[in-house]
Amino acid sequence: MKLHILGCHSATPRSTVFPSSQLLEINNELLLIDAGEGMQIQLRKYKHKFNKIQYIFISHLHGDHFFGLVGFLSSLRLIGRDKPIHIYAPVGLKAIIELQFKLTKTDINYPLFFHELSSPESELILETDQYTVKTIPLEHRIYTNGFLIQEKPALRKLNIDAVKQYPEIETWAYHNLKRGKDFTREDGSIISNEKLTLPPPPAKSYAYCSDTIYKPDIIPLIKDVDLLYHEATFLEKHKDLATKTKHSTAKQAAQIAKQAAVNFLVLGHFSSRYTSEYLFVKEASEVFGEVDIAREGKTFEF
Amino acid sequence: MKLHILGCHSATPRSTVFPSSQLLEINNELLLIDAGEGMQIQLRKYKHKFNKIQYIFISHLHGDHFFGLVGFLSSLRLIGRDKPIHIYAPVGLKAIIELQFKLTKTDINYPLFFHELSSPESELILETDQYTVKTIPLEHRIYTNGFLIQEKPALRKLNIDAVKQYPEIETWAYHNLKRGKDFTREDGSIISNEKLTLPPPPAKSYAYCSDTIYKPDIIPLIKDVDLLYHEATFLEKHKDLATKTKHSTAKQAAQIAKQAAVNFLVLGHFSSRYTSEYLFVKEASEVFGEVDIAREGKTFEF
Repeated sequence: MKLHILGCHSATPRSTVFPSSQLLEINNELLLIDAGEGMQIQLRKYKHKFNKIQYIFISHLHGDHFFGLVGFLSSLRLIGRDKPIHIYAPVGLKAIIELQFKLTKTDINYPLFFHELSSPESELILETDQYTVKTIPLEHRIYTNGFLIQEKPALRKLNIDAVKQYPEIETWAYHNLKRGKDFTREDGSIISNEKLTLPPPPAKSYAYCSDTIYKPDIIPLIKDVDLLYHEATFLEKHKDLATKTKHSTAKQAAQIAKQAAVNFLVLGHFSSRYTSEYLFVKEASEVFGEVDIAREGKTFEF
Repeated sequence: MKLHILGCHSATPRSTVFPSSQLLEINNELLLIDAGEGMQIQLRKYKHKFNKIQYIFISHLHGDHFFGLVGFLSSLRLIGRDKPIHIYAPVGLKAIIELQFKLTKTDINYPLFFHELSSPESELILETDQYTVKTIPLEHRIYTNGFLIQEKPALRKLNIDAVKQYPEIETWAYHNLKRGKDFTREDGSIISNEKLTLPPPPAKSYAYCSDTIYKPDIIPLIKDVDLLYHEATFLEKHKDLATKTKHSTAKQAAQIAKQAAVNFLVLGHFSSRYTSEYLFVKEASEVFGEVDIAREGKTFEF
């Protein structure tokens, strides 16, 4: 998986940084997570193909997480999209988008599906051959979900040298071997799968948690993920403000990462009040060392 | 007046240019004309103060002319706006904005007034002490207005050297002199205003025409304006496409400028199909010499 940051700042407009939006790359597919204003400009800037996006996940209906969506959907029409788009978002976004299409007399010429979310519990919202997506219920000033994307285990790899020692194993049998099955000879004897295959690369997982107050009850859900993006709008010295506005501090994000034993933590959604974003890494690394800050244009490969 | 270009390109998203949005500066006030996505980023980039904007004019409800508005209005709330905002826009924009505020649970903490437009005729929509704003009915695929902003004539200037030759003219009389009145002595004799004052600087005028098919019946309305911004989405070689999509070519924009005897023409709303925007100037200047292209960050002073 690769995580591409398109925008990672909070709502206050600035000239050089963008509000929340990111792409999770799985094989040749791009999952769009949040869509702050200007995200389509960022897609162009960093040369991500619009057409590789099929699934869009919106965490909550604050403008800095979705104001860029309608422009992106309109642009897809202009560039001749024909494949479907699926949007997973809180109840209400469908009405916002559809009203704009109606009043702008925009005929969307590709299949557009809204999957509106309202459950307070984690739910499986998408399953493909390669991965699943579950919601992570967060707590913010408005109904909010994070998203947990988990690759399915890949097929085992044939150990060709081992397989060739058994002329009785013909190529038609490879399909089952890759799926972990033992090989059964005509006489009923068995060659165990472990002798013939190698384990697949480990399945990766990614958790996106923005925006939220410090919420340790998400820990079982995001346990052991390879990469956790967690909002850190404030530093610990503004903890009261974080609590009041239902945001997290860098230290709190690090505490979540530590308790969930994630492999790596990326911080984002920085308030504009701070002069340097490295203050967030400094604060978090005192609790959890494997940490970095998000930045527009940055890619995390894992 | 000064015209500041924030964005001047058509809808196709690009990484380095922005859709339509501009500021007309009159004295210390900024009128916002159209609000394509990312316009608040451009305001920041070019250091225009959000709070100098009180009046917003939206030509039509195509996304590349208004998708940036909701983000801008949301940001005004964040930065503690208290002065009113007035928006002049086609019927429908109010519903779009209000639905988003409702679903994002945004309480706008400043007075926000919508003035919805639907007349097919030119109308006076705003009059202040210093200027008037009238609509320019355009013809596009959707109900569209341009805007004509005309300064009111300033006060005449006292010719102090001349005034001082008449000790009978006391300072209380200056008010009327500046307004063009003659001075009447106690004996009833008159000193004519021309002897005592100098003419004011000429009142300036600006016309914004985007998006529209070639529409010569706007000429009487924009006659003699100091600056005309006219869309030129296409070059003449794509005239058929211009007609079909109800846009103009650079040549057609120049013909409008010539027939209206404007002082200067600025072209904008360029399609992304052309490699160089100078092609638009080249084509237009064969018809009308006083022409330039709009570009993000450029200011035209007149």
